[in-house]
Amino acid sequence: MGGSRRQLKLGAFLYTPGSHSAGWRHPDAVPETDMEFAWYVHMARTAERGLIDCVFFQDTAAVSGSANLDGAGAVRPRVSRQVYLEPVSLIAALAAVTENIGLVSTATTTYAEPYDLARRFATIDHISGGRAGWNLVTSQVEDEAGNFGAERHMEHGLRYERAGEFWDVVTSLWDSWEDGALLRNKASGTYIDGTKLHFQHHQGKHFKVRGPLNLPRTPQGRPVVSEAGSSEAGKELAARTADLVFTAQTVLEEGKAFYDDVKARAVRHGRHPDDVKILPGLMTIVGRTEAEAQEKLASLQALISDEAAMRLLARLCGDLDIHAFPIDGPLPPLPPSNAAKARQQLIVDLARKEKLSIRQVARYLGTSLGHQLQVGTPAMIADRMQEWLEAGACDGFNLMFPHFPKPLEDFVDMVVPELQRRGIYRTAYEGKTLRENLGVPVPRNRYAPA
Amino acid sequence: MGGSRRQLKLGAFLYTPGSHSAGWRHPDAVPETDMEFAWYVHMARTAERGLIDCVFFQDTAAVSGSANLDGAGAVRPRVSRQVYLEPVSLIAALAAVTENIGLVSTATTTYAEPYDLARRFATIDHISGGRAGWNLVTSQVEDEAGNFGAERHMEHGLRYERAGEFWDVVTSLWDSWEDGALLRNKASGTYIDGTKLHFQHHQGKHFKVRGPLNLPRTPQGRPVVSEAGSSEAGKELAARTADLVFTAQTVLEEGKAFYDDVKARAVRHGRHPDDVKILPGLMTIVGRTEAEAQEKLASLQALISDEAAMRLLARLCGDLDIHAFPIDGPLPPLPPSNAAKARQQLIVDLARKEKLSIRQVARYLGTSLGHQLQVGTPAMIADRMQEWLEAGACDGFNLMFPHFPKPLEDFVDMVVPELQRRGIYRTAYEGKTLRENLGVPVPRNRYAPA
Repeated sequence: MGGSRRQLKLGAFLYTPGSHSAGWRHPDAVPETDMEFAWYVHMARTAERGLIDCVFFQDTAAVSGSANLDGAGAVRPRVSRQVYLEPVSLIAALAAVTENIGLVSTATTTYAEPYDLARRFATIDHISGGRAGWNLVTSQVEDEAGNFGAERHMEHGLRYERAGEFWDVVTSLWDSWEDGALLRNKASGTYIDGTKLHFQHHQGKHFKVRGPLNLPRTPQGRPVVSEAGSSEAGKELAARTADLVFTAQTVLEEGKAFYDDVKARAVRHGRHPDDVKILPGLMTIVGRTEAEAQEKLASLQALISDEAAMRLLARLCGDLDIHAFPIDGPLPPLPPSNAAKARQQLIVDLARKEKLSIRQVARYLGTSLGHQLQVGTPAMIADRMQEWLEAGACDGFNLMFPHFPKPLEDFVDMVVPELQRRGIYRTAYEGKTLRENLGVPVPRNRYAPA
Repeated sequence: MGGSRRQLKLGAFLYTPGSHSAGWRHPDAVPETDMEFAWYVHMARTAERGLIDCVFFQDTAAVSGSANLDGAGAVRPRVSRQVYLEPVSLIAALAAVTENIGLVSTATTTYAEPYDLARRFATIDHISGGRAGWNLVTSQVEDEAGNFGAERHMEHGLRYERAGEFWDVVTSLWDSWEDGALLRNKASGTYIDGTKLHFQHHQGKHFKVRGPLNLPRTPQGRPVVSEAGSSEAGKELAARTADLVFTAQTVLEEGKAFYDDVKARAVRHGRHPDDVKILPGLMTIVGRTEAEAQEKLASLQALISDEAAMRLLARLCGDLDIHAFPIDGPLPPLPPSNAAKARQQLIVDLARKEKLSIRQVARYLGTSLGHQLQVGTPAMIADRMQEWLEAGACDGFNLMFPHFPKPLEDFVDMVVPELQRRGIYRTAYEGKTLRENLGVPVPRNRYAPA
C-alpha cells in the first residue's frame, strides 16, 4: 500500500551544537559539532542513512549579540551557537563525502552580491551532482550590519524588495547557459556554442549585472531555493520563488491555514501547488517508552537557566526592555521590530492562547526556538507526523534536535523505520538530485527556444 | 646530504583545461577537467602523491572577454578557460578528500567583502586542518566590473590601496579570537571566554567592520596568503602581507633581481626574508628522451592558431588595436593599461630582447602564458630547477601544465624522483599544515598578551 500513499519529505536542521538553548550541556551532547568537520560528516551521513531529503544550515554573519557587546567592559556572550563553519563552504565540503543527501545552506541577500552567490551555489550543484540548495534569507539581525559597513540595518520592506530582485538576477544567471552550450570540440577548436550563451544586462533598483555566469547550467537546472519568511512579504516572495518553505507552526489548524495560504499564493503566481513543499520545524525527543522520552526532556529542561532563556526572549523583543517587567507576569505587547516579524507574532499568539508568563514564554523559546516539540515513543511521534501530513498541513518536516549527534541518530534509528512501516516515508532515495527526491520540477531555462 | 640542503617548494597551478592556449585540443587532454569534480580530486591527489606543497586556482568572476562580447550579433568567445568551478568552494570540497596538500584559491579584494572572505578561508582552514591559502588579487579585467554593478573598472592604484586595507581587516578578523577563547564548559554553562574575544571597530577609507569573526582562530593561526602582483604597488603589498609570491620570470638574472628585491622589501617591513617564499611559474614538458619531449611540444604548438594567439595578445594590449599592425612586424609600444602591468612589461621586454615579431610574441603567450617553459628529460628539467634554486633566484616553482591530467602525472612520476635523488626536494611532508610544509611561521595574534 505504501507506494501510492503521500509521503513525508524531511529536512535535518543541523543547528549545532543544538536547537535547545542548553542542549549542548547535556552529558550526551558533543558541542564540538559546532566546528569539527568530522562531526559534520558523521551527521550528514547519519541523515543520509535515514534517507532524509536534505541537511539544512542556518547562518548569521556575526557573533550573535555583538552589536550590543562591543564596549571593553561590556557583558560578553555566554549563549551557544556563537561559532560554526561558514555554511556555504561547509556544504561544498560535505558534497565531496556524501552521495544522495541534499545540502542546503543559508546565504543572505542583504549583504551579498548575486553574481558571487550564483556562482557558489551553481558550483556546489555541479560538485554534488545536483544536491545543492540555497536558503534565501534577508538579514534579520542588527549584528550583521556592522560587519558590512552599514550604519543601520536595512528596513524590512526594502530587504524583501532587494531579496526579490536578488533572486531574479541569480536565477537569470543560472539560466545563462543553455543545455548543450559547452562543446569542448577538439577537432574544430570551439569550446562554447556562443549562440547558447546569454547575457543578462540586468539593471534594477538594487543591482546592475551584465552576465553571463562563468559556468554552465547545473545538474538540477537550478539549485533548490528554500525560504523561511512568514511575514506577508516573506510569504509572497516564497510563493513566487521558493521550492521549499520552512516555517514555525505549532498548532495543526494554523499550520494548515499557512499551508493553504502559501499554496494558493503559488497558484496565483502561475505555479502548481506541488511545486513548493512546506516543512514546519519539528523537534523530537524519542524514547523507547514515553517515560524514557519524558526523562530526556526533563534532563534538558533542568539545564536551561532563566537568565539564558530571558536573553533569547529579549532578542525577539526589539527595543522593549523585557527585563523591566515581572518575570512571572504576562507578556506585554511587543513593539514592532525590524527583526523576524512572523516569529515574534507566533510567540505573542502562543503566550496569549496558553496564558503563559514571561518566564514560561522564555523557557519555551529556550527549548525548541518556538517550534513544535514532540516527546514520546517512535509510534507517538509518527502518529503526529502522519496526522499533519494527512490533514494537509505540511509536506513533511524540518527536523530539529536539542543537541548533536545522539538525537539525530535516535530519529534515524527509531522513528524512520516506524514511518516506513506506515508507508509514509521512502525506503530508498527516488532519484539522484534533491529536486528528484523532493518532487519539485527542473525549471525551464528562460532562454531556451520554446 | 639531502637533509641540510635547501629544498624546492612546489605549487601546482591547476589552470584547467590547460595553461597552453590550445592544450585542451591535444589527444591526451581531458577538457572536462574544467568542470568535473572527480577530475579535480584526481589532480589534487596526484599532486599530493608528488608531495607538492599546494594546488593553486586562478579566478575571474566573468566569462573572459564578455565585456566586449555583449551585442546580440557580436563574435562569441571560442578560447578556453571560460568555465570552471568557483575555486573557493572547490578547495572547500577538496579539503574533504585530501590529507596533506595545501589548497590555495584566488579571491578578489576588488568586489568582495572582507568579513565574508575572512569567514570562508578561516572555515576552509578549519575543515582542512590547516591547509588553506588565499591568493589575494585585485581584479585585473574589465569583464568583472559589469557583473558587480560597477560602471568602470577600478583604477590600479586605488585597487591596491583597497587590497591593502582589505588584508588589514581580514587578518585582524582572523586574530579576533585568541587561542583558548572557545570554552564549551558544560558544567559552568560558559561557551566563550569573552575576555579573549576582540572587536575590530575598523573604520578605514574603504571598509567599516565591527567584528569579531564568528569562528575561532584557525589551525594555521591564519590561512596562508599568496600574491602575484609584480608592479611596484604589487611588490610592496606582497612584501608587507604575502607568505607566498607567484611571479612570471623567464631569465635567471631577472628572476634573481626580483627575488632579492621582494626579500629586501620584506626586511624593510620588519619581516625575516625566509618568511616570504617566491615561486616563479614554470611549465614543463617532460619526455623520457629529449626528442620525445620536443615531439610533445611540437604536437602542442601545431594546435595554436594565429587567431587564438592574437586574441591572447590583444587582451594584454589594452586600448591598442594590435590587429592593425603587420603580424610579422615588430611589437609596437603598448599604451599604459589598467590591467596587469607587470605581465605587459615582461612581454615588451622579451619581444625587444629576442627581436620577436607580433606573431612570435602571440604564440609565445599562447604556449605558457608568458611564463618560463622547460622541455626535456627529467634530468634536464631538474638541472634548471636546481640552477635557479641554488642561484638564489627562487624558493621553488609554481608548476604549470599545458593540459590535464597527463602532464601533471608525468611531472610527479618522472621529475619528482629526480629532484628527490638530488636532495633538493622532500621525501615526505614535513608537517600537517601548509605553513609547516612551506616553512613560513604562524603569525603572532595581535590581540594576545605579550
